[in-house]
Amino acid sequence: MLKSYSELLKKIEQEIHKNPYQGSPQNLYDPLNYILGLGGKRIRPVLALMGCELYSGNLEKAIPSALTVEVFHNFSLIHDDIMDKAPVRRGKPTVHEKWDTNIAILSGDLMLVKAYEMLQKSEQNHLPELFSVFNKTAAEVCDGQQMDMNFETQTNVTEKEYLEMIRLKTSVLLGCSLQMGAIVADASIEEAQKIYNLGVNMGIGFQLMDDYLDAFGTPELVGKLPGGDILANKKTIMVIKAMETEKGKMQGLFNDEKIDDTHKIEEVKTLFIKTGSDVYLKSLSERYFDLASQNLKDLKVDESKKSDLNELLVYLHNRSF
Amino acid sequence: MLKSYSELLKKIEQEIHKNPYQGSPQNLYDPLNYILGLGGKRIRPVLALMGCELYSGNLEKAIPSALTVEVFHNFSLIHDDIMDKAPVRRGKPTVHEKWDTNIAILSGDLMLVKAYEMLQKSEQNHLPELFSVFNKTAAEVCDGQQMDMNFETQTNVTEKEYLEMIRLKTSVLLGCSLQMGAIVADASIEEAQKIYNLGVNMGIGFQLMDDYLDAFGTPELVGKLPGGDILANKKTIMVIKAMETEKGKMQGLFNDEKIDDTHKIEEVKTLFIKTGSDVYLKSLSERYFDLASQNLKDLKVDESKKSDLNELLVYLHNRSF
Repeated sequence: MLKSYSELLKKIEQEIHKNPYQGSPQNLYDPLNYILGLGGKRIRPVLALMGCELYSGNLEKAIPSALTVEVFHNFSLIHDDIMDKAPVRRGKPTVHEKWDTNIAILSGDLMLVKAYEMLQKSEQNHLPELFSVFNKTAAEVCDGQQMDMNFETQTNVTEKEYLEMIRLKTSVLLGCSLQMGAIVADASIEEAQKIYNLGVNMGIGFQLMDDYLDAFGTPELVGKLPGGDILANKKTIMVIKAMETEKGKMQGLFNDEKIDDTHKIEEVKTLFIKTGSDVYLKSLSERYFDLASQNLKDLKVDESKKSDLNELLVYLHNRSF
Repeated sequence: MLKSYSELLKKIEQEIHKNPYQGSPQNLYDPLNYILGLGGKRIRPVLALMGCELYSGNLEKAIPSALTVEVFHNFSLIHDDIMDKAPVRRGKPTVHEKWDTNIAILSGDLMLVKAYEMLQKSEQNHLPELFSVFNKTAAEVCDGQQMDMNFETQTNVTEKEYLEMIRLKTSVLLGCSLQMGAIVADASIEEAQKIYNLGVNMGIGFQLMDDYLDAFGTPELVGKLPGGDILANKKTIMVIKAMETEKGKMQGLFNDEKIDDTHKIEEVKTLFIKTGSDVYLKSLSERYFDLASQNLKDLKVDESKKSDLNELLVYLHNRSF
């Protein structure tokens, strides 16, 4: 982990654990502390702090924004896990498994309200702008999740549609995090928009690389068994690309109910390599990281201020090569 | 329906239907318009307008608050119906029945975000106060729903616990509606608090009467078949009261799996009457309506301004006598 990142992460962890959620009935509040306690990279709140640092803002002012995006992200994990019927999250039972689906629905709802309660702690002069950016993003994340669910039964998903889905489901919240940090540091509207774009491009590049690693990564690098997307018949960019030239074989593997998991993963990966889909995906990811680097270069702040975010971009970009 | 109420209701209906929700994917947005189109008394947004009227505010300024509480209420209906496994709402299929549970979870989430998006349209000088009142209320409504669910498997529910549950689940949102209307009309903090209390007391009185009507009302008055709470073994005040003197018989009826629905309803009602639980409930409801009337008298506004809200209190109070 990068040094600058580690320091900001430490700050975030302190803030998260300083005031655990308390309330009654307790079985509604326990899941909030449980999911927040599962850890994770905390990339969204760290980005909020980095956005603030970049414009020489007081980091304390960015704490409400940082916690808002992290609490919101965790709300979305609770509800996504119900929808995806996922039993495990970060090696532990998901909320609907540990408690039940009703508690998971309602504690997720409460957590979304708590995200807004955190936003409310922002300085009054920034509140309208932060509220507007966050509302727009929160709705878009819902749009992205619905697109992802719709793709499960949609036979033809285009590259454009897939990129739009990951932009909404994953990337806009990264852009929003940076932007909120910039707003509390009194960055101009133009700069706040540029740093938002940086986050969105970084998010798309990151998610594409995540898709690559889900197939070709090692368990150590990915933190889970590879091949999950293949077994779930996810229409990633590699699938979309492979379908262009090997539609019959790809669909055959998708519909083969007799093939065992290990063989299915191996055969699909072989098809990805044969069709050049793995190389295509990596070059697409690289293109988005390049856009993000360009966005960073274009920001009108002192170059020395850019090093933390630049290091993070390089780190995220390189984790698979 | 009261004339004053009808006029405000008409205004609300216009506002709701002026800008139907639009977005993509469409299957995420359709449920929002569907549930808002099912109608209902719209008591919460009407209360927001009445709170504004009372303090001689410009009604237009109360529209964002009115729509916020109505959209929030409808979000809670979508999610409550999933949790309660309810197939029908206002004579139509519930969202999870008409679409599916995943769409109901996610469109509910989106609707909660849309409630906040509506709140954001409030005048900037009132935003922090409105945001604070609404956040507190939204969290409390979740608390109340969880208490209600916990009561299903809790054997001993006290009167105090039950009253706290309906205060949170139903009443605080009525108080919040009136208070938000008062805030946009620049009422003082003290007055806004008093009108909040009025709404909470009215809400508890109303919910208690609803419990009475669920057992003793006619289908015409209630809009649904009576006896639903009895069949669901809901621990209403009448059950709690009847348990004090006829615990054995009450539990016998709750646990009797052979008795048919019509007989169960009749026998439980007979027990309610025998133990005086029906009279007790009505007097308790009356006490809360009296408190609400007193709250109204205590408001420091011209008496002529109070007539709409007073008429509403009398109307709600009398609908069962």
